Amino acid sequence: MSIKQTWLKIDPKSDFSINNIPFGVFKTANGQIRCGSALGDFVIDLHYLNENGFFEGLSLPNNVFNQSTLNEFIGLGRKKTGEARKQIIELFSLHNDKIQNSNHQKNCLIPIQSVEMLLPVQIPNYTDFYSSVEHATNVGTMFRNPDKALLPNWKHLPVGYHGRPSSIVVSGQPIKRPNGQTKAPEADLPTFGATKRLDFELEMAFITANNTPLGQAISTAEAENYIFGFVLFNDWSARDMQVWEYVPLGPFLAKNFASSVSPWIVTLDALEPFKIAGPKQEPAVLPYLKFAGLKNFDINLEVAIQPEGAPEKVVSNTNFKYMYWNINQQLAHHTSNGCNIQVGDMYASGTISGQTPDSYGSMLELAWKGTKPIVMPDGSERKFIADHDTVIMRGYAEKEGIRVGFGDVHAKVLPAD
Amino acid sequence: MSIKQTWLKIDPKSDFSINNIPFGVFKTANGQIRCGSALGDFVIDLHYLNENGFFEGLSLPNNVFNQSTLNEFIGLGRKKTGEARKQIIELFSLHNDKIQNSNHQKNCLIPIQSVEMLLPVQIPNYTDFYSSVEHATNVGTMFRNPDKALLPNWKHLPVGYHGRPSSIVVSGQPIKRPNGQTKAPEADLPTFGATKRLDFELEMAFITANNTPLGQAISTAEAENYIFGFVLFNDWSARDMQVWEYVPLGPFLAKNFASSVSPWIVTLDALEPFKIAGPKQEPAVLPYLKFAGLKNFDINLEVAIQPEGAPEKVVSNTNFKYMYWNINQQLAHHTSNGCNIQVGDMYASGTISGQTPDSYGSMLELAWKGTKPIVMPDGSERKFIADHDTVIMRGYAEKEGIRVGFGDVHAKVLPAD
Repeated sequence: MSIKQTWLKIDPKSDFSINNIPFGVFKTANGQIRCGSALGDFVIDLHYLNENGFFEGLSLPNNVFNQSTLNEFIGLGRKKTGEARKQIIELFSLHNDKIQNSNHQKNCLIPIQSVEMLLPVQIPNYTDFYSSVEHATNVGTMFRNPDKALLPNWKHLPVGYHGRPSSIVVSGQPIKRPNGQTKAPEADLPTFGATKRLDFELEMAFITANNTPLGQAISTAEAENYIFGFVLFNDWSARDMQVWEYVPLGPFLAKNFASSVSPWIVTLDALEPFKIAGPKQEPAVLPYLKFAGLKNFDINLEVAIQPEGAPEKVVSNTNFKYMYWNINQQLAHHTSNGCNIQVGDMYASGTISGQTPDSYGSMLELAWKGTKPIVMPDGSERKFIADHDTVIMRGYAEKEGIRVGFGDVHAKVLPAD
Repeated sequence: MSIKQTWLKIDPKSDFSINNIPFGVFKTANGQIRCGSALGDFVIDLHYLNENGFFEGLSLPNNVFNQSTLNEFIGLGRKKTGEARKQIIELFSLHNDKIQNSNHQKNCLIPIQSVEMLLPVQIPNYTDFYSSVEHATNVGTMFRNPDKALLPNWKHLPVGYHGRPSSIVVSGQPIKRPNGQTKAPEADLPTFGATKRLDFELEMAFITANNTPLGQAISTAEAENYIFGFVLFNDWSARDMQVWEYVPLGPFLAKNFASSVSPWIVTLDALEPFKIAGPKQEPAVLPYLKFAGLKNFDINLEVAIQPEGAPEKVVSNTNFKYMYWNINQQLAHHTSNGCNIQVGDMYASGTISGQTPDSYGSMLELAWKGTKPIVMPDGSERKFIADHDTVIMRGYAEKEGIRVGFGDVHAKVLPAD
């Protein structure tokens, strides 16, 4: 593993080290919208770098970073975008003086606190998997027979379903508590009103880099060539609506009122050093789901709840490495029937739960269906998320002095209409 | 009802009467892509009309029809697009000589057989409902207890789920039989291979005309202001894959390998004369699902199967009027939690089945789970769809001498890889 260092003064614990170089879309104080990278406490204006010839040799389109989404850039493909990232790393590496101490330095670096981050991609399609065996087991135990918590298909294929692209929003945008139809188990008839069981789901999502033709399957061996990077993903859920509506066609309005994503896409290249083996898969999977090599990622994740005007409380510490199904298998399964993918598609992991009760990825599991409320620093209790709470998810990988992080995805819950 | 007549010589039984004026996107023999309308056996080049001042007074954007999708036009909103349609009707009405017998006539009218029709919209989001009580009852009877065929939620809300926008294709594009994972009931383990139970689902889909902000509900009374028009929709399904994968999160790869749509969007304005009352809803629906007025549509529908090189056989005759849940209720329910809609979204009805066995909307029902095969004119039998079969769906409304039709959606099935 090669540790890079930068001439820019940044906190050694920053998520946005020179080894990271994620991609996002930002809006400056005067309203300009650009694609950028993050380095320490700065946003790098990539359009400025491109205009001034710093991507020479890559023949990037002139306006590829002068955009309100990263789709055109990501669509250049993994090879080209990987080269662009390497060139950015080179420019900010120790001993490189092309930008350092020049007018370029102040022109291309913008304090990260002064910009507003936007949704990084236009999302043509959104799929949500269900790939944590701990989460699926917990949910099955709560709602079905604990002895048969996993349904018969679960260990044979990465269960997934389609979600709503339109309501995916960037970190920081408040979420309104949804209204919906629910029926109490003892009631004869359903009622309509604000959900009483608003939950988060801690997930990660990968973003695809290519348009494939309908009918083309992608193998597990090829899958990573089609994946640009990851974001943190909060799949907001209304549990009381979900349990009433989801048979037989799956979750719908319990999910599609909002999902929140972190603004910086961390590339697969940056996460390469943090690959590890996943859990053993037994029974053996069918040939089209077999894979070789390390396909899980060692990424530390946490969830905090912050009541309005009060300190936050971390309610879960877990890790992305626990996932039973890896992204190669997810994409291979998704395309095994010829389903085509598009640049900017988002594929979320499903709730990431660990093996211990403090590592679960949703309030449903952490407070075990409301039976074990979480006590907040101010003494109040949470079975689910309260109005005016802010839910914050953070993630980072760290190894041998290299830190590559996601920053956070946070959103405040506003009362229902 | 005012019957319009045109100076253009067209078949009185044409789906594309002067009372229709649907919208689509076509490609000419020399590769030009334009938005157009259909009238009899001709496509009207709307960009030509716009360039030559025939939409004077409407201040349409110059290039609104010089596009590969109708999204910009549809996004002008129902009022403006309705006015444009009225102006087209006026130009082609009897006694109007602005185009008739001039150079304009030959410049703006292109024989429909000479053009290739394209997907009419870029589809940001796709939802599939499950709104036929006959279909839901049939499926529930086959796969669950006939006495409890409908699940408890079914008569309280229009059940729906999200589908895959990327794999929606226009009529005429062949469909490859998908591979996928299936498990026979008696088998211990699943296998992977070509589906043996490829089915169609006869549906209609409406297309929305607006971008709404996240958090805004649309009432049943307002819903039609947000709907541009309808297409015919074939929701291809792989039944053996579906039954194995669909618990607990709904259909996924059994559906997302392809859906086929008819190329001409018939507007809500054109369908207004064909509105009728829907079935009585009992028990009474919650207040947010109540509505006033006629909200179903009397549209005759048929499905035919044509083996390669052989005559077609009509296997189903039904009507859109049977739907239990109407489009106002579907859109009101979908947005009741604040889910936002976008221009070009597609909302499919779910399989449209009538009350008699010859009016069912899928092979699953027509051949009753394979127990009542359909005999084709050549003596062969169909329990599901065979390789090289073409499935054709047609639809039209007719009343008091006015005919407004959809043409067809057809697609040929190619063998699996």
